[in-house]
Parts: sequence; structure tokens; C-alpha cells
Amino acid sequence: MTMSLSAELWPDVQPETARRLMLAGVESFAQRGYHATTTRDIASSAGMSPAALYVHFPSKAALLFAISRSGHEQALNLVQEAAESTDSPVEAMREIVERFVAWHARRHTVARVVQYELGALPEREYEIVADLRRGIERIVRDLVARGVEEGVFTATDPGTAARAVLSLGIDVARWYTDRSRKTPALLGKEYGQLALRMLGAAQS
Amino acid sequence: MTMSLSAELWPDVQPETARRLMLAGVESFAQRGYHATTTRDIASSAGMSPAALYVHFPSKAALLFAISRSGHEQALNLVQEAAESTDSPVEAMREIVERFVAWHARRHTVARVVQYELGALPEREYEIVADLRRGIERIVRDLVARGVEEGVFTATDPGTAARAVLSLGIDVARWYTDRSRKTPALLGKEYGQLALRMLGAAQS
Repeated sequence: MTMSLSAELWPDVQPETARRLMLAGVESFAQRGYHATTTRDIASSAGMSPAALYVHFPSKAALLFAISRSGHEQALNLVQEAAESTDSPVEAMREIVERFVAWHARRHTVARVVQYELGALPEREYEIVADLRRGIERIVRDLVARGVEEGVFTATDPGTAARAVLSLGIDVARWYTDRSRKTPALLGKEYGQLALRMLGAAQS
Repeated sequence: MTMSLSAELWPDVQPETARRLMLAGVESFAQRGYHATTTRDIASSAGMSPAALYVHFPSKAALLFAISRSGHEQALNLVQEAAESTDSPVEAMREIVERFVAWHARRHTVARVVQYELGALPEREYEIVADLRRGIERIVRDLVARGVEEGVFTATDPGTAARAVLSLGIDVARWYTDRSRKTPALLGKEYGQLALRMLGAAQS
């Protein structure tokens, strides 16, 4: 756990103490699951007292929400920027998959918490995160639909195809480790090709 | 939690009390995670005393192992039978994906525990389960490689392609619920087509 990693993960979060707690939260949740982790565990793993934790996060759920919302916002921004990077649906989809897969590989510990601890969020917080998820799905689905219209993609159901494309990226967080043979960027490139083929795009 | 569901899930496990404990374990682990669940929680959810649980499973880890091994054995058998159901790599792959996806949708609660609580298994038990996983990956990878040899699939790296095919199925367990619009069988059919296209197979 280093200061630079937390700043790299959450450049927009201030102060550094809050980022340090988020990183300790990610590591504890990823290792033992949200429900088995106490705020005391997280505080002590960040080298703080529980009281110091509550200065930044009123509850364990608030800390999970901060981690989850930030992760989803990053993923949404990344998908949005990739989608807008070119007018070609094929190239836009390639960019989305390459970046989305690489992010889930590079940030696999954060991504695991973000993807698999959703059910632990309180209702109101869950709805905010679910809205970000729907935003991601909508961009990919609309892009599939546009590609079908323009005759460059084939998909009987753009919703199912979009979900399958996103599954390829999300599931990377489950199995990727720092010992994995392929770099996040290389894996992204390979998955980009696989996803385009899945959508029936002519391969360049 | 009904007697018939546990018999359907684990037809080979006897007596019924053991199956009832496995079902209670699945439900508790899926809801709160392995580490936050106590053997007392599981026993009481199955309407038993902790002592009665220990008659069948010496520990919480032994119960998780029984659930995980059985789930992986079912998945391996299903993939093996599908692979051997025809000589055509294209049709064999279609069968594998259809059945694997449908299983992860229909058994989504069991599958979530099986797929996401691997890290909680003790080392020796983990190795046994990892061996079953490698068996599944090997069948799919060998089939991709055979299809490439016979000129019916395109894949630059059969290992990566096999992993992507399996990801499509595994990730279904994460999002599928009883309220999902598509039946497990229909979802399997659609994903079968997507996977074949991903492998560059000519669509029939």
C-alpha cells in the first residue's frame, strides 16, 4: 500500500487520508469480503484509529460506496471517451473493449470490489451506482445498434450483444493477477479483436 | 429452500441432511460471503444445531469444499459431454456454450459461490478444485485448437479464446436473476451464436 498507488487510483479524492482508507478498504474487502470486514480492520490496516476513519467516512457502507461510485465513474468515463474518440462504430468498439479490458486487468483488485460487492450497498447508494452501470450499458448497446444500422455489425439483440461484450471485460477482474502472462494492454488488444468478431465486424 | 431443490442440485449427495446443509451454505455464502457466515448461521438456516452440522461436515471450509467441488464436477461433466456429443468442432462448441451458459443462469446462486469463493478454500482443497477448472479450460482450448487445425475456427491464441468463451458463461452467474427476461435456454442459444462468431466460425 503506497501513497502513490492511492493517488493514481483516486486522483480526485482529497485529502490523502481518505484515499489511504479507500485503499485499505479495497484490500480488506477483496480479501475477506465486505461483511466480514470491520471498520476497525480497515482503520488499523491504514494505520489509523476507527475514530479517524469516521472523520472521512460515516460508516463502512459509506466507504464501500465511495470506492464503488468512483470505480463506476472511472469505467463510465473511459467507455464514453472511447465511444466519442471516432465516428466509426468498429473503431469505437475496439477502443472501448481495449480500454475496458485493460482497466479491469490493471485495476483487478479495485474492480473485484466494484463488480462483486454491489449487493452490499444500501438501497439509495445502490441506485446511484446502478445508474452509472446503466450508462455504461447504454453506450455500448447504442453503439452496437448504430453499427447494425450502418451495416458494419451483425447482432440479433443489441442488448444481449452489449452485455456479452462487457462480460468479457468484467470477468477479467475475476481471474487476472499480477502474475498473469499477458500485460493489460496486450490482453485488451486481443479481446478487442474477439469482441469485434463477435459483433460480426469485418476484421482489419 | 425445499427438499426437491437440494436433491436436484446434488443428486449424488446422501443423506438428505447433508444436501440441506449444502443448500443453506450456498444461500448464506451467496448473501453475506463465506467469511461473514458462521457454521451456526448455516445450521440454524437449515433448522439444525451446529453439532448436527459437524456430523456431516467437519468445518465450514469442508462445507464450502463440498459445494465447490460438486459445482465444478457438474460443470466439467457438462462440458465433457457436450464436447463428445459430436465430431464437428463447431457443433461441439455450440453445445458447450449453450449448456455452460444455461447452467450458470439456471444455477446462478450456486454458481456465484462456486465461481467467487474459490479464494476461501484451504490450499489442498483449492488444488483439487483448480484441477477441475484446468480440466474445463483444457477441453475448450483443445477444441478451439482442433477447429483452427481443421480450418473452421480462427484464433491467434486458443488459450485466450477459450478463456473468453468461458468468461461469457461464468459472468452470467454475476448478473442473472430469477427476474431476468430471457430463459436460461434462450440465453444459452444466443451466447452459443456469439461465441461461434467470436471464433470465426461460419454461421449456419
